[in-house]
Order: sequence, then structure tokens, then C-alpha cells
Amino acid sequence: MGLVVQKYGGSSVADAEGIKRVAKRIVEAKKNGNQVVVVVSAMGDTTDELIDLAEQVSPMPAGREFDMLLTAGERISMALLAMAIKNLGHEAQSFTGSQAGVITDSVHNKARIIDVTPGRIRTALDEGNIAIVAGFQGVSQDKKDITTLGRGGSDTTAVALAAALDAEVCEIYTDVDGVFTADPRVVKKARKIDWISFEDMLELASSGSKVLLHRCVEYARRYNIPIHVRSSFSGLQGTWVSSEPIQQGQGDQKVEQAIISGVAHDTSEAKITVVGVPDKPGEAAVIFRAIANAEINIDMVVQNVSAVTTGLTDISFTLPKAEGRKAIDALEKAKTAIGFESLRYDDQIGKISLVGAGMKTNPGVTASFFEALSDAGVNIELISTSEIRISVVTRADDVNEAVRAVHTAFGLDSDSDEAVVYGGTGR
Amino acid sequence: MGLVVQKYGGSSVADAEGIKRVAKRIVEAKKNGNQVVVVVSAMGDTTDELIDLAEQVSPMPAGREFDMLLTAGERISMALLAMAIKNLGHEAQSFTGSQAGVITDSVHNKARIIDVTPGRIRTALDEGNIAIVAGFQGVSQDKKDITTLGRGGSDTTAVALAAALDAEVCEIYTDVDGVFTADPRVVKKARKIDWISFEDMLELASSGSKVLLHRCVEYARRYNIPIHVRSSFSGLQGTWVSSEPIQQGQGDQKVEQAIISGVAHDTSEAKITVVGVPDKPGEAAVIFRAIANAEINIDMVVQNVSAVTTGLTDISFTLPKAEGRKAIDALEKAKTAIGFESLRYDDQIGKISLVGAGMKTNPGVTASFFEALSDAGVNIELISTSEIRISVVTRADDVNEAVRAVHTAFGLDSDSDEAVVYGGTGR
Repeated sequence: MGLVVQKYGGSSVADAEGIKRVAKRIVEAKKNGNQVVVVVSAMGDTTDELIDLAEQVSPMPAGREFDMLLTAGERISMALLAMAIKNLGHEAQSFTGSQAGVITDSVHNKARIIDVTPGRIRTALDEGNIAIVAGFQGVSQDKKDITTLGRGGSDTTAVALAAALDAEVCEIYTDVDGVFTADPRVVKKARKIDWISFEDMLELASSGSKVLLHRCVEYARRYNIPIHVRSSFSGLQGTWVSSEPIQQGQGDQKVEQAIISGVAHDTSEAKITVVGVPDKPGEAAVIFRAIANAEINIDMVVQNVSAVTTGLTDISFTLPKAEGRKAIDALEKAKTAIGFESLRYDDQIGKISLVGAGMKTNPGVTASFFEALSDAGVNIELISTSEIRISVVTRADDVNEAVRAVHTAFGLDSDSDEAVVYGGTGR
Repeated sequence: MGLVVQKYGGSSVADAEGIKRVAKRIVEAKKNGNQVVVVVSAMGDTTDELIDLAEQVSPMPAGREFDMLLTAGERISMALLAMAIKNLGHEAQSFTGSQAGVITDSVHNKARIIDVTPGRIRTALDEGNIAIVAGFQGVSQDKKDITTLGRGGSDTTAVALAAALDAEVCEIYTDVDGVFTADPRVVKKARKIDWISFEDMLELASSGSKVLLHRCVEYARRYNIPIHVRSSFSGLQGTWVSSEPIQQGQGDQKVEQAIISGVAHDTSEAKITVVGVPDKPGEAAVIFRAIANAEINIDMVVQNVSAVTTGLTDISFTLPKAEGRKAIDALEKAKTAIGFESLRYDDQIGKISLVGAGMKTNPGVTASFFEALSDAGVNIELISTSEIRISVVTRADDVNEAVRAVHTAFGLDSDSDEAVVYGGTGR
């Protein structure tokens, strides 16, 4: 037995009953002989309620004060959780991000962790305590101001602490049973994944899967911390995310990695097409410099074949819908420099992505993917690929049908015998 | 113009509207050329709601975690207030008790301030900011844990900061217009007091007046910080509490000190009578050592004349009702050592106190006080006096009538011409 970091999300500690339930689970881990560090989010909708309050007093809440406000949420949940654990007869101490040594840069509302110095946590553990740490928050290195890590930041807190404390595992407790081969709300036959590699999980996260954030998985991969995503409402094994397959259950089970890990989808993006761009070197650079200067992250980029008669081409790219207005403004400002004819904005698109390390060595995957979409009558508007992912943009209305079709075609349905797997303990 | 510390209670910042109203008032003080430090309590019922939550997860919430929980309340209100001020175009920064340098001992839930090192506040002020500080909280000197100062602690925070920053005045904003000659809910004709000495205010506070806590006034007296108690809902002058009368208004006004400052009452106490105590030296010591060991604060003490035939006497004392059970238990345990016959517990009592430095030099005050009570048909059960206060215990049912009778008898009623005053700038 060793050191375990557990993270509980807001839905797991939404009320007093939830806090007591979680406290029991934490005490169990302690009774099993582990040193236990718990990272906790704000209760239920607390953060949203605080944001509402902020918007009532100020249309544009400021960075530093906004962080001071939001971090009150975790302070409440962590103190209550420590009390609930003490009430079960075990010692617990709660720590703010600052007290836990979570040092960040000074970018309020979306700070990045630059160091973790968990001296007080270590001491608390050595004295036999369960340590409860506020997720989502830290303290800036230069000004000693309270910072927040942005939405989903508690997962990152947990992984960062696990790395700094050299934990055996970082358990992320949530309200679902783990990572699924597709969103179970869309695909009824989606299967829970027992194990997935960091690389595949990163691709799923950046393709619309919301269970784990990209940043958290990236951090875990860098420090090689196994993540175990599981439900706080059941005792079931969830999904292990790690570099090597992890043996679990009866001991004689062999974990096999599927060629395809899962199908992700995302309807939060929009597509902008820059129409009638002169087909000459440097044009794309001018366009995307204008976008980058506006601090907008783009996703897929496609350039059409140039029309021979006009010497003009179209360039399309996708980006978060929330950034659409800003991007259009930035491009309009740069119209003379770029020299395009017009802009087309389309927010009725969806993206479907197939992710799996196995596709590197299985040339038929791309063909099967397009066939499945074709059979389902789904029209493809853009295509983008990486070594272990293939993504297409379709009409938003077609997304759910497309996800189901691809999920079935690759034998991922839970009652299918066709799941394509290969054995192995590595990549 | 100089440095002003303003403190706003929970009722002044109960919702977003209240916060915006308070922000305007703070900005006014800043526009008048002052450096402004604001101490703020938790919004409305926040603290009570947090206590409710704590009791749901643990029947006996623990000190350290309980303080961590409760201090979330001020973190919310101070951040919102800073945002609201920024929204009015002025710079503001919020600080936790720890960041503001409020250093306390380690007695959780009722810590005492042992030092104030407001370096960050000074810097914020010098940079042109309004500094917003969380009331009610500090950080322990030895363990660097978050502590709270107990109910009403925000007033003490304000006075302590005012002292450390050498402020000109500590303004305590509340939901009443100031300190009154009696509780206006009981005495319709109660008058707002324009100025009152620290000494008289201390006696009023310890006799049941709830506007200012004894600890806060004591702190202000020690460092000679004038307090201005006033309403956050009006622009009116309130009550000045200071060592010397403070000139206010048109400039040609002369502040006069009344012989009697006011009438306070208190129905939160109970009376315990130890019946049949041997009338010999050391008996009272044994009784009150037993009470002190149980950490119970007592108020009035009276010993009856011994009955010659039995050599036995009765000793009565008053104490907070909340401590009644504990006191009875402590005395029963010490029954053999004390040797009393029985205990009588009475929680249907009330205390009426007349306070005024003038009574030192006006021998008729005590007689007039008893005459007023007698004329109102109020029976007196216990009497206790200090140099500038006289208190009696009566039936709880008689308290309101007694307060009104005394208030009228000493010419304190607002439509009375009889108010007894003497001019002067000192005592």
C-alpha cells in the first residue's frame, strides 16, 4: 500500500449527504493502509452561483477578485469534508491551494501550475492525517495572490499533487463509471473502456470527450502518473489511463488494447471560410497571424484546390463557437492585407473523431470509417487526421447518427462480438 | 484628509444591491481625498447557512476546519465588493485576514488578535487602491492556520487595522443610526447619542447593548481610535465613541455629555442560587473556583445576610443562559466540597442597567433609579454597581416596563426637555 490521491468533483459533494458518502469512501482507502490525499471541487452549483453574484455587481468581473471569489467554493467543501471524516473517527486536515503548495503563474482565471511544494501535506500525512486539498486553486509565485486554474482545474490539481507526492495512482471520482467508447447519451451501446493509453486519451479529450481534460492527461503523461477514472456512486472499477496496460480484477485477466479506443464528437465548434483568397505563398500565414493575434485557438484547417481560371482559393478552419465573433472581427480588420473576397460563418457543424493507436498499423481503418459514414448517408465537409485519429466535419444534425454508425462499424457496441483487439502489454 | 477604516456588517451587504450601494459610499470617501480601508463581514445569513451545513455533516464541527469553513463567507463578500468598486471606475484590492496581516493566537473559533502587520494594505493604499479586508478572520502565529475571532469579530478587525494603520477614525456601518439611549424596539422615544466616552460605551456593551461589542470598544480605547457608529442606509451622522467629545456638524455646535448615557437591558442571563451554604470563610472561593474551572463567565454575584439561627447563607449569581446546564453540573459535582443544601435555577430574569460617568458626581442618581422602578411597580431581586453603572435584576416580564420608566425618569425621552447634561470637553 502507498500514497493515493483521490479527486471528487462537485456532483459527488453536492450536498451534506454526498459529503458524508464521500467521507466514508475516503476512510475506506485509509483503512486499507494507504496514505490518502483528497482533492475536492466546490459543492454542486456553488461556482455557478458565485459567478452569477459577480455578474450582478459587475458586468466584467476582474481577474484577481474573481479568483478570490471563486475559491471560496472549495474552501467550503474541503472544510465540510474534513469535518465529516473527523466525525467518522479519523484525523483530517484541509488545505487551501496556497497551503498545499500549489504555485502558479499570475494569469488569473486560467493560471498554470509551475511548481508544487507540498511540505504541509507531507507533514499532515506523516502525522497520520488524511489531507484534504482545495482543487482548482493556487497562489501566484510573484505576487502571492490567489489564482484559479480554470474550469476542470481540480483534476489538474489532483494529478499535480500526485506527481509531487509520487503517488501510486490518481483516482478521479465522478458521476459516470469511467471513459466510454462514445458518449453514452448518444450511443446506448457504448462500452466502458477498462484501460486506455495516455496518447489515445489525449486525442479523445481534444476531440470532444469531456470526462478528462486534455491538460490533466498531459500532466499525468509527463510525470507518468496512472489515472483511474471511476464513479463515486458505485464501488466499480472504472477506466485506467496510463502508459502501460494495468492488470486488474482476478489477476488472470489479460488487458487487451483495442485497435480503436473510441468515437468522440463535438458540436461546440463553428467553421469560418475565407472565400476568394489569392493563391500565392504567404496568404495563409497572414490569415492565421491575424487569428493568433486575437488569441483565438483554431482546430482544423483545410485549403481548397485553387480554381485555375481565377487563381483564387478558399481556406476553411474550425474554432470554438464562443470565439466566432472575435475571429470575424479580426479577419475583417485584416481584409486589405489578406485580400479575400468574403467570409462565410457556419455554426451548424459537428465533428466526429475516431481514435485508436491501432490505426497506425491497420491501413483499412480510414476506408472503413468513410464507408460507415457513407452508408449512414452522412456528408463530409472537412477531413483532418493525426497518426492515431481521424476527424471529419459534418452537419450538426448528422452528428449523432454518424457517431452511432461508426461505433457499430468498428465493433465497439457492447453486445457486439466483433470488437477488434490485439493483445500486448505495450505499444 | 487622512486614512479612514470603514466596516460594513452583513446586513449592509446582504445582496448584490447592498454591495453596489456600499461600493458607492466607499468611493465617496475616496473621492473626498481619503485613503480608504474597508472591513467587510459575510453577506447576510451566509455564516448561519455555513454553520447549518457543518452541523449536517458533523454534530461537533472541529475548530480548525470550522474556521476554514466560516471564513469562506467574507472571502465572497470582499471579492464582490472589490469588483463593484472597480465597476465604478476605482481601483480596489481584496485581502484575506492572513494577507492583511491579522495575526492571532491559535484558539480556533474565538482567536484573539496578537499583532497586525498590514504591509500589503499599506502598499495597496500607496498605489492608490481602496483596500478591502475580510473581517472576523486571521492567521495563527505558530501554525499559520486560518482562525476566526468569534461573532462580531469584524468590528475588532476594523479597530485593530485602524490602530495599526494609525487611522483618523474607524467607521462602523450598520443597519441602525447609531448608539441609542435605550433599545428603540423597547423605548419608542429612545434618542440617538451623538457622542459617548469609551468608558460609558464599555459599560453599555457589557450591560446588553448590542451595537458594539465590548472587545472592540476595549481595543479602540487602548489605542485611542475614535469609532463612528452609523447607518449604511442613510448619510446621517451616527454616534461617536472616543476619549474626548468630537465636534461635528456646523462647527459652532457644542457637544455636551449627559450625566446618564443610556439604559441597557439584557434578558440573556439566568440566575443560580446556591442555597444553605455554611457562612464561613472560603465558601465563596470554592463555589466560584468550580464555576471558573468549567470555563463559565459569571456576571453579578450577591450573598445574602446569614441567618443567625442556622449559620447558613445563600449565594446568587447570574450567567449566560447557554451556560446554565454546565454550571449546575459543575456545582453538583462539587457539592461535597461546598456543602450546600440545594441549587435553584431561574432563567426568567432580566437585567436593567443605567450607565453614565455623571453618576460619579451626582449622588442622587441611585435614589432616582430605585424610585423610578418602585413607581413602575417593579420588584428588584439583585443589585450591582460600578463607578459609572448601576444594574438590577428583575423578573424578565418586568424588563421592558422598567427600561421605559427609567428612561423617562432620567429625561432621556426624545421629546423631553429635562435631559440632564453638563458641558465640557473632558471628564
